[in-house]
Amino acid sequence: MGLALAEALLERGHPTTVWNRTPAKADGVVAGGARRAASIAEAVSASEISIICLKDYETMYGVLGPAAEALRGRTLINLNSGTPGEAAAAADWAAELGAAYLDGAIMVPPPLVGDPESVFLYSGSEDVFDEHRETLASMGAPRFLGADPGLAVLHNAALLGLMYATVNGFLHATALVGSAGVSAVEFADLAVNWFLPAVVVNPALVEQAADLEASDYPGELGTMEMNRNALEHIARTCVEQGVHADQARHMAAIAEQAIAAGHGGENYLAVYEVFKGDQAMPQRRIASRA
Amino acid sequence: MGLALAEALLERGHPTTVWNRTPAKADGVVAGGARRAASIAEAVSASEISIICLKDYETMYGVLGPAAEALRGRTLINLNSGTPGEAAAAADWAAELGAAYLDGAIMVPPPLVGDPESVFLYSGSEDVFDEHRETLASMGAPRFLGADPGLAVLHNAALLGLMYATVNGFLHATALVGSAGVSAVEFADLAVNWFLPAVVVNPALVEQAADLEASDYPGELGTMEMNRNALEHIARTCVEQGVHADQARHMAAIAEQAIAAGHGGENYLAVYEVFKGDQAMPQRRIASRA
Repeated sequence: MGLALAEALLERGHPTTVWNRTPAKADGVVAGGARRAASIAEAVSASEISIICLKDYETMYGVLGPAAEALRGRTLINLNSGTPGEAAAAADWAAELGAAYLDGAIMVPPPLVGDPESVFLYSGSEDVFDEHRETLASMGAPRFLGADPGLAVLHNAALLGLMYATVNGFLHATALVGSAGVSAVEFADLAVNWFLPAVVVNPALVEQAADLEASDYPGELGTMEMNRNALEHIARTCVEQGVHADQARHMAAIAEQAIAAGHGGENYLAVYEVFKGDQAMPQRRIASRA
Repeated sequence: MGLALAEALLERGHPTTVWNRTPAKADGVVAGGARRAASIAEAVSASEISIICLKDYETMYGVLGPAAEALRGRTLINLNSGTPGEAAAAADWAAELGAAYLDGAIMVPPPLVGDPESVFLYSGSEDVFDEHRETLASMGAPRFLGADPGLAVLHNAALLGLMYATVNGFLHATALVGSAGVSAVEFADLAVNWFLPAVVVNPALVEQAADLEASDYPGELGTMEMNRNALEHIARTCVEQGVHADQARHMAAIAEQAIAAGHGGENYLAVYEVFKGDQAMPQRRIASRA
């Protein structure tokens, strides 16, 4: 990912200094015009802003330790994944060092970095975002989410969770019919033909968003209890077929929780009320995005 | 659903007799030309084929009990949901009564019944399917899946499981950002814009189907271990925000199982190997769709 970022910056004409724990990894971008720093402190000292993308926040602290002095008066833009609490701690850490800080999340795989439509999420210092917007736009479409530094990783977690649930659903369904010898190709064809009129992250779901906010789940076209029954059919079918049943059981249990909470006669989207969890939780990391 | 089926049959000119446990429910279709039977036995006796759609198989046995004699020499087409084992038992039950039997599943909501593109799945007697194909086509696009009577409900469970996982993923992600005061409308807009280049039940997943069959999960573009880490980030973020965390934990546990089974360096699709479960399970209801 670091290479893709450096390439995108170079391509838009930004003088770029690179540093990697494994120096040889930078050979390609150095051949392409990047300057190679001999140390992390040298890399940070070379520019007004440093863009960093590592495995997690803990790794970042380790790597940037020797550059703590160099960061004073400069700007750090951190693109790794983590939790909102970890992002907030990183912002505090940078402030103590006297560095401006912007947290971010890259919502595309490396080959799409540099594409002007690739979504990059940012949160934290809006001043940093505004001042360096053009540089950020070299890597993708920058979107500022708010002053809380955890908002970018929060959105990253939500979008990835959505992606995983969808992919898991497809794979689990394929495994279920596969238990009866149906080929994945044949099932995919059927699934696509069934779903084409009602694709998944689609206008139909998007149109429900206002109902979610209003906790408005009219049950005329189908109730939670009907959906709970369907989910129990699915779980029992998995057991019969010797296929992993926990995911269906888990979804059935969520529907059951929604019924226990009084949503039995409402439509399936009322599981949103279960997912939302404890809205009054006092220790919540980001209680509002003020 | 029964009304929608009767209306579709009447619309294509099929003489139709209707019966419902709550007679008044049939008033509309009777006004539209259907004949009302006074009993289930009278309804079954009125036609060569009877089409039935109830809550589950147990309900069907209760309803059809008084029509057992009338079914001899006639054909029963049953469209309720259930497990493959329940479908097989129903086929045996019909055979003992001397009735031909076809099991099916309706993959659209009632308003789409009668649309020539609406998917209706069938399995069991291919003779019944072929003989009555034109009648079945009055209700939607009939698709025959094989001789095992459980194949239709198996596919129904798989497709619904896929739908639930996808919808749950969207709702859970919305709840996660909602914990920070982000509106569902705003998040839906972001999610659609992120996913537009890579929609969910999409050609990209469909193109993976052959790899699933070959258990071929090359990890160059990302490994299971990286995905497990991302899922753990998501679960920890849910805990921090007081949002329902079980779904993410469950997905992380599945990835962990895949790693324990030796897929740590393969790509995420290898969770398919976990979902497939015990392929040697001897009691599997449908071992192959022969």
